[in-house]
Amino acid sequence: MKQILMAEPNISEGRNLEIVEQIVDAVRNTPGVTLVDYSSDPDHNRSVITFIGEPEDVLAGAKALALKAFELIDMRRHSGEHPRQGAVDVCAFIPIRNVTKDQAVEISRRFGKFVGQQGVPVYYYEDAATRPERKSLPKIRKGEYEALPEKLADPAWAPDEGPAVFNPQSGALVTGSRFPLIAFNANLNTTDLKIAQNIAKAVRHISGGFRYVRAMGFALEDKGMVQVSMNLINYTKTPLHRVLETIRSEAARYGVSVVETEIIGPLPLDALQEVVRFYLQTHDFEIGQIVETALLDA
Amino acid sequence: MKQILMAEPNISEGRNLEIVEQIVDAVRNTPGVTLVDYSSDPDHNRSVITFIGEPEDVLAGAKALALKAFELIDMRRHSGEHPRQGAVDVCAFIPIRNVTKDQAVEISRRFGKFVGQQGVPVYYYEDAATRPERKSLPKIRKGEYEALPEKLADPAWAPDEGPAVFNPQSGALVTGSRFPLIAFNANLNTTDLKIAQNIAKAVRHISGGFRYVRAMGFALEDKGMVQVSMNLINYTKTPLHRVLETIRSEAARYGVSVVETEIIGPLPLDALQEVVRFYLQTHDFEIGQIVETALLDA
Repeated sequence: MKQILMAEPNISEGRNLEIVEQIVDAVRNTPGVTLVDYSSDPDHNRSVITFIGEPEDVLAGAKALALKAFELIDMRRHSGEHPRQGAVDVCAFIPIRNVTKDQAVEISRRFGKFVGQQGVPVYYYEDAATRPERKSLPKIRKGEYEALPEKLADPAWAPDEGPAVFNPQSGALVTGSRFPLIAFNANLNTTDLKIAQNIAKAVRHISGGFRYVRAMGFALEDKGMVQVSMNLINYTKTPLHRVLETIRSEAARYGVSVVETEIIGPLPLDALQEVVRFYLQTHDFEIGQIVETALLDA
Repeated sequence: MKQILMAEPNISEGRNLEIVEQIVDAVRNTPGVTLVDYSSDPDHNRSVITFIGEPEDVLAGAKALALKAFELIDMRRHSGEHPRQGAVDVCAFIPIRNVTKDQAVEISRRFGKFVGQQGVPVYYYEDAATRPERKSLPKIRKGEYEALPEKLADPAWAPDEGPAVFNPQSGALVTGSRFPLIAFNANLNTTDLKIAQNIAKAVRHISGGFRYVRAMGFALEDKGMVQVSMNLINYTKTPLHRVLETIRSEAARYGVSVVETEIIGPLPLDALQEVVRFYLQTHDFEIGQIVETALLDA
């Protein structure tokens, strides 16, 4: 069985597209790696690159990308709206197919060790975190690049890899592994924001809902609708269909219904297995029945 | 965009597995071809081999398989329950991804020409048929191998390729192209066969139902259920969900419901797009959002 790991590095350059291309080329030129997508945001001055392949190839691609980014990006001259701490601000490794959580963590640790050897302080987050207070990226990134000199002097924020010394050019890097998340929105035929907010509360973990759902309610003024905007952070334990059916049922109490939903960005094939099983009642359906999977496993 | 074509040859050997392996090896040893599945039925004395790849590679695989089967199978000694006319009884070419109907027909015609050059009479069927009465495999195969000498002497049954001369060792071959079909069954919580038969009538084309559905009602005695057993022969024009929703609605009139459904065997990834769009209301969902498709197109 072929393994597929995904890497999703975020780099602190979103305006000079020549530099972005050179950094993306480092991935393109790594054998065995397939570039899935990349996009740059000039306001954020940040680019997100997504690539997949066998775990060792993806590790090699991430190393090549990091070296190029450390060479071409100078954090002393960086500004942008998005919080950031380093030239390669964060690099998540995400298991897609036949890769365990432990394997993904191990790859992220080997990547972290390599980055540390380049003289860049590294923090491990999510499944690779070494302490509970380092699980969350926003917590690690608090104070951003500008706070790094002070932070690195604090023993509580000693880096997991690399020197406890401020690197002015490259800043710091956060890496680790997490389960693939699905960005899923449901739009409702009402302009009453309260309804979207109530439904968000009903489904999200923090207020009593499903364990692996984050949700907020928004107004979609141009559409004359409201939206329940969600991240499903573990689709095997809290599957898509169950969240949607709960939204439909909660919406009905207000005489409101779901007009449309959106899956934003990429999702693993595996996430569709439960959707198909639930809605078609094909209890035994296997993703392996899809003809194309023979090519993934060949 | 990489193209994926599937070939599904049926060979008239299902007992001597050493011979089957040698014939399957001809496919395995064809560069660029991926074997999806193969299975042998001793009662039918027949094996079905499924493989995929770029169209030219699949054509090469089919040629290699045919040569090996013509060498190792002798129709003079063949008996089995399944109707058959030749050593390679039928070979369907099925477009799976980024392949048009016309391209698949062209590949089947080039395969047919090659087989004809080996001295084996060839008939084109389904989308490659040269006359309406040759569209249907059962019609072409009527009388089976034993009727071939007489058939080939009849100008109405002049072969589309190859000599109008009986080939005792290899018989005749039928090839062509067809849309991928989905074998789909719905099991109902009743033992009343009449209900399954009525629902089969409601959904199938021949009696007024959907254009691309073939259906029959069966008793599942060991399960204490009845089954609506279907072939969906064009899932883009008659999608899975619409057939299932009609079955659910027709079952309800008898106070009966669908307990489970089954998708038997392989289906193309593409067939799930409408399922996901309908049931999740993700009107814009694209199969290309699935991470793994980047590998198919790389």
